[in-house]
Amino acid sequence: MSRSLLTVILAAGKGTRMRSNLPKVLHRIAGRSMLGHVLARAKSVGGDKLAVVVGPGMDAVRKEATAAVPDAAVYVQENQAGTADAVLAAREAIAAHKGDLLVLFADTPLITKETLEALIGELDRGAAVAVLGFYARDPGSYGRLLTSVDGTLLAIREAKDASPAEREVKLCNSGVMAFRLDSPIAVLDKIGNANAKGEFYLTDAIEIVRSQGGRAGVVVCEEDEVLGVNARRELAQAEAIWQRRAREQAMDEGVTLISPETVWFSFDTALARDVVVEPNVFFGPGVTVDEGAEIKANSYLEGARVGAGARVGPYARLRQGAVLGRDVHIGNFVEVKNVALGDGAKANHLSYLGDGSVGAKANIGAGTIFCNYDGFFKSKTEIGEGAFVGSNSSLVAPVKIGAGAYIGSGSVITKNVEADALALERSSQEERPGWAAKFRIMMARRKVQASGK
Amino acid sequence: MSRSLLTVILAAGKGTRMRSNLPKVLHRIAGRSMLGHVLARAKSVGGDKLAVVVGPGMDAVRKEATAAVPDAAVYVQENQAGTADAVLAAREAIAAHKGDLLVLFADTPLITKETLEALIGELDRGAAVAVLGFYARDPGSYGRLLTSVDGTLLAIREAKDASPAEREVKLCNSGVMAFRLDSPIAVLDKIGNANAKGEFYLTDAIEIVRSQGGRAGVVVCEEDEVLGVNARRELAQAEAIWQRRAREQAMDEGVTLISPETVWFSFDTALARDVVVEPNVFFGPGVTVDEGAEIKANSYLEGARVGAGARVGPYARLRQGAVLGRDVHIGNFVEVKNVALGDGAKANHLSYLGDGSVGAKANIGAGTIFCNYDGFFKSKTEIGEGAFVGSNSSLVAPVKIGAGAYIGSGSVITKNVEADALALERSSQEERPGWAAKFRIMMARRKVQASGK
Amino acid sequence: MSRSLLTVILAAGKGTRMRSNLPKVLHRIAGRSMLGHVLARAKSVGGDKLAVVVGPGMDAVRKEATAAVPDAAVYVQENQAGTADAVLAAREAIAAHKGDLLVLFADTPLITKETLEALIGELDRGAAVAVLGFYARDPGSYGRLLTSVDGTLLAIREAKDASPAEREVKLCNSGVMAFRLDSPIAVLDKIGNANAKGEFYLTDAIEIVRSQGGRAGVVVCEEDEVLGVNARRELAQAEAIWQRRAREQAMDEGVTLISPETVWFSFDTALARDVVVEPNVFFGPGVTVDEGAEIKANSYLEGARVGAGARVGPYARLRQGAVLGRDVHIGNFVEVKNVALGDGAKANHLSYLGDGSVGAKANIGAGTIFCNYDGFFKSKTEIGEGAFVGSNSSLVAPVKIGAGAYIGSGSVITKNVEADALALERSSQEERPGWAAKFRIMMARRKVQASGK
Repeated sequence: MSRSLLTVILAAGKGTRMRSNLPKVLHRIAGRSMLGHVLARAKSVGGDKLAVVVGPGMDAVRKEATAAVPDAAVYVQENQAGTADAVLAAREAIAAHKGDLLVLFADTPLITKETLEALIGELDRGAAVAVLGFYARDPGSYGRLLTSVDGTLLAIREAKDASPAEREVKLCNSGVMAFRLDSPIAVLDKIGNANAKGEFYLTDAIEIVRSQGGRAGVVVCEEDEVLGVNARRELAQAEAIWQRRAREQAMDEGVTLISPETVWFSFDTALARDVVVEPNVFFGPGVTVDEGAEIKANSYLEGARVGAGARVGPYARLRQGAVLGRDVHIGNFVEVKNVALGDGAKANHLSYLGDGSVGAKANIGAGTIFCNYDGFFKSKTEIGEGAFVGSNSSLVAPVKIGAGAYIGSGSVITKNVEADALALERSSQEERPGWAAKFRIMMARRKVQASGK
Repeated sequence: MSRSLLTVILAAGKGTRMRSNLPKVLHRIAGRSMLGHVLARAKSVGGDKLAVVVGPGMDAVRKEATAAVPDAAVYVQENQAGTADAVLAAREAIAAHKGDLLVLFADTPLITKETLEALIGELDRGAAVAVLGFYARDPGSYGRLLTSVDGTLLAIREAKDASPAEREVKLCNSGVMAFRLDSPIAVLDKIGNANAKGEFYLTDAIEIVRSQGGRAGVVVCEEDEVLGVNARRELAQAEAIWQRRAREQAMDEGVTLISPETVWFSFDTALARDVVVEPNVFFGPGVTVDEGAEIKANSYLEGARVGAGARVGPYARLRQGAVLGRDVHIGNFVEVKNVALGDGAKANHLSYLGDGSVGAKANIGAGTIFCNYDGFFKSKTEIGEGAFVGSNSSLVAPVKIGAGAYIGSGSVITKNVEADALALERSSQEERPGWAAKFRIMMARRKVQASGK
Repeated sequence: MSRSLLTVILAAGKGTRMRSNLPKVLHRIAGRSMLGHVLARAKSVGGDKLAVVVGPGMDAVRKEATAAVPDAAVYVQENQAGTADAVLAAREAIAAHKGDLLVLFADTPLITKETLEALIGELDRGAAVAVLGFYARDPGSYGRLLTSVDGTLLAIREAKDASPAEREVKLCNSGVMAFRLDSPIAVLDKIGNANAKGEFYLTDAIEIVRSQGGRAGVVVCEEDEVLGVNARRELAQAEAIWQRRAREQAMDEGVTLISPETVWFSFDTALARDVVVEPNVFFGPGVTVDEGAEIKANSYLEGARVGAGARVGPYARLRQGAVLGRDVHIGNFVEVKNVALGDGAKANHLSYLGDGSVGAKANIGAGTIFCNYDGFFKSKTEIGEGAFVGSNSSLVAPVKIGAGAYIGSGSVITKNVEADALALERSSQEERPGWAAKFRIMMARRKVQASGK
């Protein structure tokens, strides 16, 4: 859906309470920065123009914004003089825009698509300005939304200015607003700073719009959606809310989570029907799992594709570029990075598969290592269909193991192996009878001497 | 305890809301299908005859039922026309039975033994029919149990037919019922389908029994016990309830769970007194742990026996047939499958022990692999008492290492080793002075060239 | 802060409900015994004299006490005849002491420093005796603290002796008391045992002190602080409370915990600002992590120091004496014990580094094992700066790898390697063309025969 909508995202807050060197809005939830979540949400409701307002020196925030949305405009709010001042940092974009204006906060990453659509819908129903409100469990210091019986927003009252009756109101202001005005700039410029802090508050726009005969509407969402993140505890709280939603959605779509509260998703995790996930599984960004695959406990996946019917884990680590065909088995203490495995291939124990490919139905023995790095370059190990790599082998890349070939256990393979051949690197086994018995006597004596010192 | 009790278990539901290819009642809780839980519960109260009613084409359900209880009779409900219709699918078994009749649901796996005994006890106290009820937090659309002051069940009122006063009743119908009748079939056959859905409801039996002068009784259980599973979220909820019970029971019996909510049990897990379990431990089916053993974090056990005082993990994977003697140590990133370890044996790091035996006090070095598979057959590695297997060794089965023998690090052992001998498979170490310095210069140059392309 | 304070810690309880061979107060929370927590808390408020009262035969408790606080006096309560009897087991210490007396319980390990300071502060405000109270969610059988309007403690009423009005009081007795008396012994000796159980109750001291004209004061704390541990469920509950506090404190200090409820701290864990901890990380005792380091999921650390900017895990196991410099990377399935790694060193996959040192920027390949143990002694592996250890190598200690040296993959290194040299231990690779094809035919035939038997 496309509409003429400019979204201004306020991302200039320093976030002192985070106690971090990282700007607040770059802290992550579900593997994506809070700013990234808000940008994605803005795009999802058809926002065709995006402006991000950052603080001075926040190059990392600028970079994150343009990396996520290359044509986002980034503006610097030089002095932090209130929310209206922040929005007006994007004056150029607002002045040039014909259409609706939406103001979002980069530290409020949990608003749903449905809620934003309802907010814009309020404009369609004739409101000149629409405010997102919520019923607060503990309204405390939140601004209250004072409404008429027909639901029209009359005023936003700051908690400290509220009468006792007004303080009883539980409908609070999230700060998120949408405007449909001939000239938002004209309204924004009317906002003054004659208040205790000398700041320009965006909420003052309500009174101005109403004084010009415009209607102000309210849309109500869940309190969870408008949780603002200012400290690490709130970050953890936001993560928990996000994860709960993702877990419930996965279950509703036919995924079994034995212990939902111990499965962590990223923003883009995609699990198909009849996938079973055991406890304590972490999905980093970029993971897709096809129908009926099983992800056993303590697995950690990122940047990986898991084929239908595959069995992964427990303790499997799939990294960027791990591509598992149908019915592939990746077992315990196995790491796979940048390797595609054909249907039915297996690597079940204690192995490192880095850079290369494994043919269908190949079997990689326990303790196998793809020696992919020489200190300077990464090279590939290519294993043919149906090959059998004996346990504890080292495959020194670049190297090719032909289809159906067999590698003797414990071999260091440095040269290519032909299809259907046996390759072996091994000395002869020597035995020294009685050596161990003598060794034990000698060492036991030494141990006594050592402890006697 | 044995009594003449026929239990009919209704397992024909399709479970569309599960969004699964697997029939609903085969979804698992604590490592056992829901049907398996209900069958076990029915057996535990002395149910000597079991009949399972499945839907058409549900061969997998039939198989699960007869695998768990070989003499269970399985009946197919051809048309799904209500609960009474389902029970009557087992007409043959009911007609042939002299004694009590119990009706359970295969998607309601959490009813306790005590509750079922109380329900049957209600028959002993003179009831002709006994219904299992519960006080619902949110009665909503549940049928209400209307009782007289002396606790006699007068009627079951469907929510949509209830008067406002009746809707206030919080005592709800679980659907579970027990009968002591001369001829249950005669009662069941009287149930009609003159209702909105045209279905035959088992609950109508109450009215029929009462009209014949029989008393209807109620037994009340916890709402958690009668949670019915129709969707994956409910499956997760049932799992959580089951696990909470198991964790509390383990603690009551003298097990320390540092973080109970991150320890998962199977239906048959047995932990002795003074076992300590660290966070995030998964017990699959078939595990027994003896007194004073410690299971450290992130361990995953199934089909294993752990001896008294043993130390397992962190990150230990014990699989089918792992049998650990007293004071055995299995350390991090070690997998044991089908291997018995004698008292005091140790395998502390990064090893795969598959198929074989390890003698008492033997020490298996880091990175040891039992090469048990040649692509066709599994063979055994037998290690004698007090043997010392040097790190990174590969033991190519079938192979025997004698008692007290010593294997040099990094060896591939393909032939048996005598007791007390040293065995070694190793080439001589070569050194090329200055090679690495030259290599670095060459590779650094190539890296510059490569990046220059 | 130093004051003249004698703390008597009651540790004689048998703890039958724990169902344990271990004395109750030795059960651990956050890696330290409950007794250890209480001893540390007593020290933290300036308690310069400590007396621990143990039961007969509790040598392990005595040992724990004196290991934690070498000059703690330990007394045995021969017959367990009530709390006053227990305190009087330390008669000698109390009689010899000039100053305040504090009575703590070794099974009540969660009282905060602030609370104890407030209790002692009540003495400074003129109370002769101060009792620690709490508002109970469910007062049940707790003794009630009956107070006057000005907050003076009038009496402690046992639940069974309380009038209906008194039972409504929610302020309950924790048992913890502080005294400022000329002669505590004189007061304690006045306590009688004319009660149903024939025991001497410390709470009777209130009445005696008041009858002598002394004021009794109350200090109120959170119920969580005075949770007494008598069973394993309560131990788990205490652990959960302790962990919640530690998690919140870490977040407040600028640590990101993605999933706080799955991170476990020990009593002495120290994490710096901008440390990020992924889910399921276990910090055993003795861990310090410097600024900006990342501890990825499923890691298990104890006795380790992690340098700034280091990246640890997932699945990293750091043990006693692991010292990681700045920007060190320890990856999946890697165990480090008693090894210091210089800045920028890396060991990313499936390795065991035990006993030794790794120079700055050295690279340890996948599957490397430090063979540190010969069955009798542990020896050291020393790796120079910038060295490159090829994958699957075995380094047989004692051994030194010079700076900048290069070890070929799969080598067993038993002799020192010069700086900048290449060292290699390897046979030549043999190939038998067609062998695998023939082998498959033969084995497939055998498999058929085997299954035919």
